[in-house]
Amino acid sequence: MKILVSNDDGIDSPGIAALVKSLKEIAEIIVVAPQYEQSAVGHAITMKIPLRVTPYYKNGDFFGYAVDGTPADCVKMGIRNIMKEPPDLVLSGINNGSNAAINIIYSGTVSAAREAAIMEVPSAAISVTNHAPKNFDYAAKLARRLALKMKNQKLPLGTMLNVNVPDVSEEEIAGILLTKQGKSTWDDVYEQRKDPYGKDYYWLTGKMFDVDTDADIDQVAIRNNYVSITPIHFDLTDYETFKKMKNWHIESLMNEKET
Amino acid sequence: MKILVSNDDGIDSPGIAALVKSLKEIAEIIVVAPQYEQSAVGHAITMKIPLRVTPYYKNGDFFGYAVDGTPADCVKMGIRNIMKEPPDLVLSGINNGSNAAINIIYSGTVSAAREAAIMEVPSAAISVTNHAPKNFDYAAKLARRLALKMKNQKLPLGTMLNVNVPDVSEEEIAGILLTKQGKSTWDDVYEQRKDPYGKDYYWLTGKMFDVDTDADIDQVAIRNNYVSITPIHFDLTDYETFKKMKNWHIESLMNEKET
Repeated sequence: MKILVSNDDGIDSPGIAALVKSLKEIAEIIVVAPQYEQSAVGHAITMKIPLRVTPYYKNGDFFGYAVDGTPADCVKMGIRNIMKEPPDLVLSGINNGSNAAINIIYSGTVSAAREAAIMEVPSAAISVTNHAPKNFDYAAKLARRLALKMKNQKLPLGTMLNVNVPDVSEEEIAGILLTKQGKSTWDDVYEQRKDPYGKDYYWLTGKMFDVDTDADIDQVAIRNNYVSITPIHFDLTDYETFKKMKNWHIESLMNEKET
Repeated sequence: MKILVSNDDGIDSPGIAALVKSLKEIAEIIVVAPQYEQSAVGHAITMKIPLRVTPYYKNGDFFGYAVDGTPADCVKMGIRNIMKEPPDLVLSGINNGSNAAINIIYSGTVSAAREAAIMEVPSAAISVTNHAPKNFDYAAKLARRLALKMKNQKLPLGTMLNVNVPDVSEEEIAGILLTKQGKSTWDDVYEQRKDPYGKDYYWLTGKMFDVDTDADIDQVAIRNNYVSITPIHFDLTDYETFKKMKNWHIESLMNEKET
């Protein structure tokens, strides 16, 4: 089995080292990861400027390729250019911090895995729910088991798994739950400051506004110390609204009076 | 009616000027748009560096605010900081180039509108299907009619409309269709070049690999000269796979043998 590993915290982050170390026991690993941290870049891709690829040796831990772009760039570059043929699996992580509910939209870690799904390669994103996680080991072990599971249980083309692991010791993990994406969002605040020259600048802060309550929602599962596994895809069509909008008669916009 | 206008081509682009000019006839307009072009940035937000906001006068066409960030940043900044209360509507565009099928994932234009939807403000993204559009006027007129329609027909919270207008004259528009997101993706190619110092760099190119055939798919509608309107949301859960994965018994990953 060949596994392409990427992330959004950068090729230097401890999370990717823990993941590679664990996966090496079961597969050939190719690392293609961002040269610099790329958190919250969403599904950005680099088109207007060129990319560079730098061979990278991490303390003897692994050899890989650093790309001066986004997580989605790394997966495209890895599959289209660096590898001779597509990998069996793409794993992205292990991310510092939860990627549940609305964070799925902003996450670079998830976008790396989603880019793989778009390219019809099975994939998963792995995150630990703390910005300075203490417990990468359990998540790394779980990623290895999941990789073996995904080899036997085929995901539909275009679907990926989003995995969030609570940052607690293995003994404190309550279980593993199949979940749906939550609806919790951020209560954003722009902190206004003055630079040394008296000019205003704004720093995004805020906290998660936690509105989810059902046990099978990603956000709730991790709050209850469960590992959360959510199948996600890239079809954003709101089918329910699609049906309801038949009553809008949008074709009338062709020549409707504007008042 | 108050409308917040943003885009991803930058506050200087002709598309946003055409949109503002048209909307001014029916509403008070607040422009908050990226200082520089931000195509394909996806749903990136800026957290690790601060943002600046610069008042901007465009040839007497409109007054607005330029933000040195992403389209999603502009909408957050506009709603949280610049406006006293949320607008009635957010419109993003008019974009140079189609945002149908997989491009919805990469698009900064769509992400601006989606950020508004996340913030529970009704919104739409408007694109014209050509990278150097000749026909902004019809799209601008349509956006104005759609704004009035959206005032009366409420979208569910969290859902936005993705509008693609063929770049043809008004007479050639075949009609307006309610559509679903297509599955067409890109056949990426990294063009390898050498810099003046003999080092390799890679430029992303490629063409759309058009696999959609049904008449009610965004990609097909615009190919047939129809205006395409797709309701999209930010729940990425693949519910069908969620049901099927009950058979995976993922809880067994807790202590499964690894072979």
